[in-house]
Amino acid sequence: MSSSSSSVNVDLARERQGASIDSEDFARWWAGGSDKLEERRSLERYVFEDAELEEAVHPSCLSYKERYEQTIVRSTKFLAKLRQWHSSKHPQFSVSVDSLREFRVLLSGQLGTALFQQSFPLRLHLSMFLTTLLGQGTDEQLHKWLSRAWHMDGIIGTYAQTELGHGTYIRGLETRADYDAESEEFVLNTPSLSAYKWWPGGLGNTANMTIVLAQLYVKGRHHGLQPFLVRIRDEETHQPLPGIDVGDIGPKLGGNGVNNGFLGLRNVRIPRDQMLMKNAQVLPDGTFVQGRPPLLLYGTMVYVRVITLRDVLHGLLQAATIATRYSVVRRQSPIDESQPEVQILDHITQQVKVLPQIARGVCYRLAADWLWNFYARVLEQLEVGAGQHSLPELHALSCCLKAVGTDEASEGIDLLRKSCGGHGFLSSANFDSIYGMATAAYTYEGEYTVLLLQTARFLVRQYTDSLKRKVLPVSVTYLRNTARLNWGKNLAENAARALEISALEQTRLAWQSQSMHRQRKLSEQQANNLSGRQLTAAAIAHAHAFLTRNALQELERLRRGSLSPQVSAVLGQLVELFVLDTFLRQAGSVLRWNSITGSQLRLMERRFEQLLAELRPNAVALVDGFDFHDRTLGSTLGSYDGRVYERLMAEARRNPLNQEPVNATFRSHLQPMMRGKL
Amino acid sequence: MSSSSSSVNVDLARERQGASIDSEDFARWWAGGSDKLEERRSLERYVFEDAELEEAVHPSCLSYKERYEQTIVRSTKFLAKLRQWHSSKHPQFSVSVDSLREFRVLLSGQLGTALFQQSFPLRLHLSMFLTTLLGQGTDEQLHKWLSRAWHMDGIIGTYAQTELGHGTYIRGLETRADYDAESEEFVLNTPSLSAYKWWPGGLGNTANMTIVLAQLYVKGRHHGLQPFLVRIRDEETHQPLPGIDVGDIGPKLGGNGVNNGFLGLRNVRIPRDQMLMKNAQVLPDGTFVQGRPPLLLYGTMVYVRVITLRDVLHGLLQAATIATRYSVVRRQSPIDESQPEVQILDHITQQVKVLPQIARGVCYRLAADWLWNFYARVLEQLEVGAGQHSLPELHALSCCLKAVGTDEASEGIDLLRKSCGGHGFLSSANFDSIYGMATAAYTYEGEYTVLLLQTARFLVRQYTDSLKRKVLPVSVTYLRNTARLNWGKNLAENAARALEISALEQTRLAWQSQSMHRQRKLSEQQANNLSGRQLTAAAIAHAHAFLTRNALQELERLRRGSLSPQVSAVLGQLVELFVLDTFLRQAGSVLRWNSITGSQLRLMERRFEQLLAELRPNAVALVDGFDFHDRTLGSTLGSYDGRVYERLMAEARRNPLNQEPVNATFRSHLQPMMRGKL
Repeated sequence: MSSSSSSVNVDLARERQGASIDSEDFARWWAGGSDKLEERRSLERYVFEDAELEEAVHPSCLSYKERYEQTIVRSTKFLAKLRQWHSSKHPQFSVSVDSLREFRVLLSGQLGTALFQQSFPLRLHLSMFLTTLLGQGTDEQLHKWLSRAWHMDGIIGTYAQTELGHGTYIRGLETRADYDAESEEFVLNTPSLSAYKWWPGGLGNTANMTIVLAQLYVKGRHHGLQPFLVRIRDEETHQPLPGIDVGDIGPKLGGNGVNNGFLGLRNVRIPRDQMLMKNAQVLPDGTFVQGRPPLLLYGTMVYVRVITLRDVLHGLLQAATIATRYSVVRRQSPIDESQPEVQILDHITQQVKVLPQIARGVCYRLAADWLWNFYARVLEQLEVGAGQHSLPELHALSCCLKAVGTDEASEGIDLLRKSCGGHGFLSSANFDSIYGMATAAYTYEGEYTVLLLQTARFLVRQYTDSLKRKVLPVSVTYLRNTARLNWGKNLAENAARALEISALEQTRLAWQSQSMHRQRKLSEQQANNLSGRQLTAAAIAHAHAFLTRNALQELERLRRGSLSPQVSAVLGQLVELFVLDTFLRQAGSVLRWNSITGSQLRLMERRFEQLLAELRPNAVALVDGFDFHDRTLGSTLGSYDGRVYERLMAEARRNPLNQEPVNATFRSHLQPMMRGKL
Repeated sequence: MSSSSSSVNVDLARERQGASIDSEDFARWWAGGSDKLEERRSLERYVFEDAELEEAVHPSCLSYKERYEQTIVRSTKFLAKLRQWHSSKHPQFSVSVDSLREFRVLLSGQLGTALFQQSFPLRLHLSMFLTTLLGQGTDEQLHKWLSRAWHMDGIIGTYAQTELGHGTYIRGLETRADYDAESEEFVLNTPSLSAYKWWPGGLGNTANMTIVLAQLYVKGRHHGLQPFLVRIRDEETHQPLPGIDVGDIGPKLGGNGVNNGFLGLRNVRIPRDQMLMKNAQVLPDGTFVQGRPPLLLYGTMVYVRVITLRDVLHGLLQAATIATRYSVVRRQSPIDESQPEVQILDHITQQVKVLPQIARGVCYRLAADWLWNFYARVLEQLEVGAGQHSLPELHALSCCLKAVGTDEASEGIDLLRKSCGGHGFLSSANFDSIYGMATAAYTYEGEYTVLLLQTARFLVRQYTDSLKRKVLPVSVTYLRNTARLNWGKNLAENAARALEISALEQTRLAWQSQSMHRQRKLSEQQANNLSGRQLTAAAIAHAHAFLTRNALQELERLRRGSLSPQVSAVLGQLVELFVLDTFLRQAGSVLRWNSITGSQLRLMERRFEQLLAELRPNAVALVDGFDFHDRTLGSTLGSYDGRVYERLMAEARRNPLNQEPVNATFRSHLQPMMRGKL
């Protein structure tokens, strides 16, 4: 423990002095350049200096209702502040897809996380509500609504799709909108309990408008799912409008600032021009006109998955930063009995828990960047009428990377939490909140298994195409490379190739399984269902093959650029650690599909352990380089000064339960019990 | 969804009708006989009929302080009720190790869980405080304290060992007790911030006494860690006594009813007779007398680990019950596109998530029972001066089973939560609470990795003994069986044998790794540290080898007894599923150390999938047979009637945030924001 109240923990300070990399150098690269780094830091300074945005009580001590209220108080202030800053930077601003995305990055990125560890209800207004309005409204509708919506002028919106009884299978959604040509209105209903909208953020007590996805019926005829703009609370009084049954769905494992809500609709009438009609129209007489197929909608889903990968890798690296700093401050158990207790990061069993998570986060970032560029390229091509051929590949990659990335990042966060022993279990360490936010993504915007099956369907199709000598998309060309593993000196290359072979063979196995079931006279869908294990395994293997190959390729590409020698060296270690770690973790699949000897495996393990030793001295400098502000980490264990025990105790003393020496229940219950009077 | 408010969901009812096993038959076996089943049910009826013990608001909606207060109110009432019941059953009662254990089972078992999903502060009094007093107090001390403590007559106790800066390595504990021969008192101090006691349950605001573990010093000489009985709060006023700095450590990932506390001691004086002196004494003049080595203490640690395995497997089976029932009520995505949405348990990808967890929980139970009997046998032998030779084996088994069981049960609970999609994420589903309680055990009473290293040390010793032709304990005789896998028709036997070979080879590898590092002139401890990956892998492999072999053997033993044919059949399926699942999950290790062909693997997988299909129709009847009361499950998704959507909505409507149509922050913040006035 450090001696003076302002100083940095001595062990942590020594780690920084002993590092061979400069964390500022790494930070500049990580942030995408010194300009971006400085811009983010200056915005953080601007926001964090505001004492009104601080939390008087740790949110985990608040009741669910108090937490909601504090979130509203702080988030309205924050948005006002952010708008000020924004309009000073962009005086000529107009709402666009790009500007909304920029805002989204601010709100769910490091800054938003710093202020709202469990998110906040108004986020949905700025992300889903405005984005959908912009993407699906006609010009007249945008003219009427967009500016008001952007300025939140009487409008706080959200987006309501999922229902209590229906999620993944959107054709099963029950909410309906019946067109009444007489009054030129739609009549919206949730015809049963299971039809209630359930989950939309901000819907519970905050939003006064929502986009409702409903099955459109005109004269009894079904015209698919369409978006409707529905006012649910009175603009002046905020009272729920007639026919509206709305409320909060209650506490959750994470994201308890979001105010997720339910919504029942009973004969709620809205004018015809409140169906968002960019893609399909209902004319006054009820004629239904189907517009062009919504390629953009498809693009939005891909976009959200790319962004999700970015969000969860940030969560993983927050957790890794906390655990790394704690692991050099905490001393426990000597290695040699005659010596003092060591920093726990000196135990190899601790290195194994912590360092591969850093490598994982960094390599996910390489994948997320690559995917983002691919996505942007495809969008550009689509605008000039090309690029359609890339959509299935983009879709397949975004599905499995979101699924596997979310799953493994969450697993990593939990492992990092456990690596901090009992203290990691405290809410003040913040792992619980980080985990809650990350694992939520396992389900939202495409459930894990459903997404894997989407990818698998693509893989099997590509595999059968490869048998027909068709050209394969870049990310799956390995499906036609039937060469066996040719063990070479480059261990990472061996590992990446072995993972590709595994993915190829898992895909082949899935295809064989489907064929076998088909031969038993089962329908294609039944055969798919019974091959679910093989299909999902193929998609996971594909994700691993892509992630490792991509990391190696991106490393090469970056090294041809302007990386500093230090960043280049440490990045090389991280990529190699990630590739070897993935190989070793997937040993079951790798060994099944490759012949690898015991001594080759030991070589891999030896190198893996060597990399841990090589990275150990730079661990603190590396996580410093991610440049998470203490407010973003929100952790007693992970702050920059490493004053772990002081912060744990200070946070405990802030606990409202400790504000009075004797709790009232002593007189009312404990004392009567001790006197046998209960 | 069912139609009338009192009925059972139709899909769930149909599952029950279609089962081939009788859940009551299974329940009798599972409970250990119809007497025990009926006794538990009658106690549950007695307790649950008391409306005062119900919760008006879901605990996840309460503030941390409110939650504490409600827990005190309800737990004092519950204890009073339990004492009534207990004294009516046992009029001649006297406190003993066995009776305390019986109480512990009640308090942390199905009944205690039903009332206090996140435990309660008074539990530590009945478990650790009384147990330690009984085990370490002299006859005079027991005479003075035991009866008062049992009746909580002016005493609410806890047990304080772990410190803010010290846990696993108990020699590093800093709290000290200096004997003052002049006044015949001990002077207790926590000499630094890191010496503060940190974690004891009930310590924060509830206990007025605690057993403090402190380094004893007499005339400056150190005499090891000793237990001291310290009053910390005034019996009448409950005010902290002079020199005492006490409070609650704050919210946690789980166990938020426990009131874990911190404790600083500054020159706190206690009379000489408040050191618990059964094992070591300090005479009035300061002479230190060491008694017999505390074999029993060792036994207590083993006991706690056995019990922990039982606790986490119950958590796993609670989660499995909830997920199974939800999986037959929830319908999502048709298998054939022309058909309606199916019960999600009909998707094989869902079966893979749910059914192996049931099998795992049941086989952990077989292991926990076996270990308990082994433990009881050793204790009996110790009392007649024998049995010492079994202690290392008992210790090693209890370590790795607690570690691996806790880790995999937690992982299973989380997987089951995710198998329920978004709804599993809601606190009202109760997975978050079950997970929090289970994963806490990853760290408490022996941290995961530390325990694995303990087991590994035993394994390596046994392995080298086997090379010297010494006799090996039963659970590790496989270490001398160097025969290769002889693939036979019995797939479960193949799997179990392959896992044994893996454990043997992992142990050999760990030993080789240690030897290699030793040859590089490293100390034994340094070599151990650098072999940490190999050693922990050996311990995990041993746990898997033991769990699978034990399940097969226990199945045989039980079948020689009085199992009904139906229970016998389904138990056989569960054991086989568990063994095959373990084999497939450990494929990396299994394939490394055994030569198994692709077609043999496919055979295993085919059988695994076949077992899922065989168990599917009995899934609901099986989980019914665990006989968890709805109060114990505490889940909107898992109740016996399967009225999932009704319960989700009812729980949401109870949420305090929904008790007023418009929250106050609308006027204070949302409206000003919308009017641009913020």
